[in-house]
Amino acid sequence: MQRIETIEWTAAGVVMIDQTRLPRETVFVTCRNYLDVADAIRNMIIRGAPAIGVAAAMGVALGALQSNNLEADIPLICETLAKTRPTAVNLFWAIDRMRRLYEDVKHLSAQEIRDTLVAEAQAMRANDIATNQAIGRNGAPLVPDGKTVLTHCNAGALATAGFGTALGVIRAAVEMGKKIDVFADETRPFLQGARLTAWELMRDGIDTTLITDNMAGHFLKSGRIGCVVVGADRIAANGDVANKVGTYGVAVLAKENNVPFYVAAPISTLDLTLRSGDEIPIEERAASEVTHVQGVNVAPDGIRVANPAFDVTPNRYVSAIITERGVARAPYSESLPALVG
Amino acid sequence: MQRIETIEWTAAGVVMIDQTRLPRETVFVTCRNYLDVADAIRNMIIRGAPAIGVAAAMGVALGALQSNNLEADIPLICETLAKTRPTAVNLFWAIDRMRRLYEDVKHLSAQEIRDTLVAEAQAMRANDIATNQAIGRNGAPLVPDGKTVLTHCNAGALATAGFGTALGVIRAAVEMGKKIDVFADETRPFLQGARLTAWELMRDGIDTTLITDNMAGHFLKSGRIGCVVVGADRIAANGDVANKVGTYGVAVLAKENNVPFYVAAPISTLDLTLRSGDEIPIEERAASEVTHVQGVNVAPDGIRVANPAFDVTPNRYVSAIITERGVARAPYSESLPALVG
Repeated sequence: MQRIETIEWTAAGVVMIDQTRLPRETVFVTCRNYLDVADAIRNMIIRGAPAIGVAAAMGVALGALQSNNLEADIPLICETLAKTRPTAVNLFWAIDRMRRLYEDVKHLSAQEIRDTLVAEAQAMRANDIATNQAIGRNGAPLVPDGKTVLTHCNAGALATAGFGTALGVIRAAVEMGKKIDVFADETRPFLQGARLTAWELMRDGIDTTLITDNMAGHFLKSGRIGCVVVGADRIAANGDVANKVGTYGVAVLAKENNVPFYVAAPISTLDLTLRSGDEIPIEERAASEVTHVQGVNVAPDGIRVANPAFDVTPNRYVSAIITERGVARAPYSESLPALVG
Repeated sequence: MQRIETIEWTAAGVVMIDQTRLPRETVFVTCRNYLDVADAIRNMIIRGAPAIGVAAAMGVALGALQSNNLEADIPLICETLAKTRPTAVNLFWAIDRMRRLYEDVKHLSAQEIRDTLVAEAQAMRANDIATNQAIGRNGAPLVPDGKTVLTHCNAGALATAGFGTALGVIRAAVEMGKKIDVFADETRPFLQGARLTAWELMRDGIDTTLITDNMAGHFLKSGRIGCVVVGADRIAANGDVANKVGTYGVAVLAKENNVPFYVAAPISTLDLTLRSGDEIPIEERAASEVTHVQGVNVAPDGIRVANPAFDVTPNRYVSAIITERGVARAPYSESLPALVG
């Protein structure tokens, strides 16, 4: 099957598969300048913490490439990209890395600076894929053989530069020969599970069953789920995990039913500057995401809506955090800094 | 505001508001024979345990009215109506009540039998409204003042002959002068919360916020939810509760966050013949309810789907069961039979 790239650097600009239109249409969007990249992140044409990190890095590189005044423009470019979404820390991590690299090389010629930033953004994409493969290798041994893996949202190839974090663990477990199948929460309101996870896993030939989010408890109670694996948007120093809204509920239901709950994420998702998840900003998105499904209105006009895009899972529900450098377990305030080194 | 009836007996047949088309369209369906009533229950034109009980009773009455051979037809009519949906016990309770009444009066003339059955079906509708008002009176004191009530699915006027069970408790609390607002889970896949509960409560001027099902945990953890109130489709002798899928998850999350979890249901929802919820049959509905939202396909073609319409909440998560005869608390195996008397 043809491999579909989440994000690519091309001569025409940064090319992304439009994740708002999957699985019904496979459409690619070309971001021709950094503002296009910022819009693509804001409007969730690209989403997933690692993927928006790579997108932001490419946005900085694209901005630099088109700038005639790097010293003035780099801060503006970085600030614009950083304002797109508040919760996933990979976005800020990637932008900071590009900004620091710029500081390191700004004594060079403008052309050399641009070349360096473009090469770095491309390297970050390649590194992300390698990181996910390492996460998969580290996580696959934790997946119980002969059982079902439950996942929430999409922490797959589409949420990263490729392979995926949570879905990377599942892919690696399948590559190891484990006989597993997957239950995918549809993940309202944006339906990343129904539209993206189901699509990705079907393409890979991995046996997948789609459920609505509110069915997760029923199946966790049934005994068929061997483990839960999800991604993360930001992990605090104490191991509290911000991830797509609904993750907290799944984690509580997993614990209640003695099902291990694993978080798969790169080291760049750790934010050790935050003591706990209470300090993680939670993005509130538009009411129309809840009142409408793919453009169809499903609620009475004028109804009030709450739409937090993420929630925080306290560390006591997290069985382990799987990173490219190894698997952290409680107490996370010791194991996470040890992994970062 | 004009009162909208869920179900009415008219000269033209049994008239129901079409709950598949709310809130976008207010359309009434006239069931002209008992097969139409069976289809309406099966296709969820009418849904909600007490409402389908009334519908089934009216279906039996309609069938009797059009029968020239009551002795042969009554069993067939009852069997057909009983096969429409398996989980809500009110359906079987209502049909049994009509069947037993038929046995009691079958020595009368055909016309007297028909009149008796029609009168009984109409009385069951009126009694259901009175029952819900009593449930409201019994439950309202339990609702914390100044806080938010979370509800799942629609246990409102539309799920009953009127007033509602869970929403009856909320309405009665508002009538008592309590300052409360409501968070309504949208309740995928059929969206009873978004389409029906939000619509009902807005019409009543009760402050309501719509959330996706997977946000319930986030708000239960936030401290703003004072209690959860839901309906029920069947309650076993030990207090295990079958209700719309997702109820179990809400109950676990409520307990985890020390939020009381109340079930509001008429005595007719009790099935004391079942020792525990494990014995309650759970309806599996069509995959298209999950893959499509109001006719729009949101998932890849050919994806496998699970669609259990209900789940079972074990009694240990249930703070109290609110009935028209009083409030039952654990141990339910004692308190529920005592209420039935």
